[in-house]
Amino acid sequence: MITHTQETCSKAKLAIHDTLDIVGGKWKLILIAVLRSGKRGFNELSREAGISPRILSKELQELEINGLISRKVCNTKPVTVIYELTPYSDTLADVLTAMENWGYQHRQKILANK
Amino acid sequence: MITHTQETCSKAKLAIHDTLDIVGGKWKLILIAVLRSGKRGFNELSREAGISPRILSKELQELEINGLISRKVCNTKPVTVIYELTPYSDTLADVLTAMENWGYQHRQKILANK
Repeated sequence: MITHTQETCSKAKLAIHDTLDIVGGKWKLILIAVLRSGKRGFNELSREAGISPRILSKELQELEINGLISRKVCNTKPVTVIYELTPYSDTLADVLTAMENWGYQHRQKILANK
Repeated sequence: MITHTQETCSKAKLAIHDTLDIVGGKWKLILIAVLRSGKRGFNELSREAGISPRILSKELQELEINGLISRKVCNTKPVTVIYELTPYSDTLADVLTAMENWGYQHRQKILANK
């Protein structure tokens, strides 16, 4: 790991803070990971990600405001709402990959030490 | 971004969940970023990361339990406690780098759109 100086440390701190502001918390990266396998309706997302509707609604709204997902209301009966990733969400690919890899190796490590 | 199948999606979800369990929340990655520029005492960390002592204490304990930082009590008067990164924390380098890069580019994007 590269050792940071005081200055690059402050810059890094700010940037990590910014990222956590947008995709931090328990659910946002999970939702993005789920939507990577294709668009979903609200109920599907709630079920697949294991999130209560009330929290899901808030998380999706924040992701939409930040341009990471789009929300499409379909004129069906009853009305259905479809969520999908925006092209901008592709910029999170490295974050998601790094977190996937780390989580995977950490679980292997814990299991190996048991 | 690679499109996930249902199966790789579940695996990714689990791995991201695991990572968020260990380094999620508002502070842990910030603390690790600060400690990358060298070991720190408790008060220094509290000041530099902008965390209240009560929360900092809990966050540091969790990072220590998960083998990411080490805590050394120095026999000074008054006693000082020094925190530093463990070699295992190096495995988080890609996560930190990806989050730094994303936060940095996102801020540029927001500023450019203003």
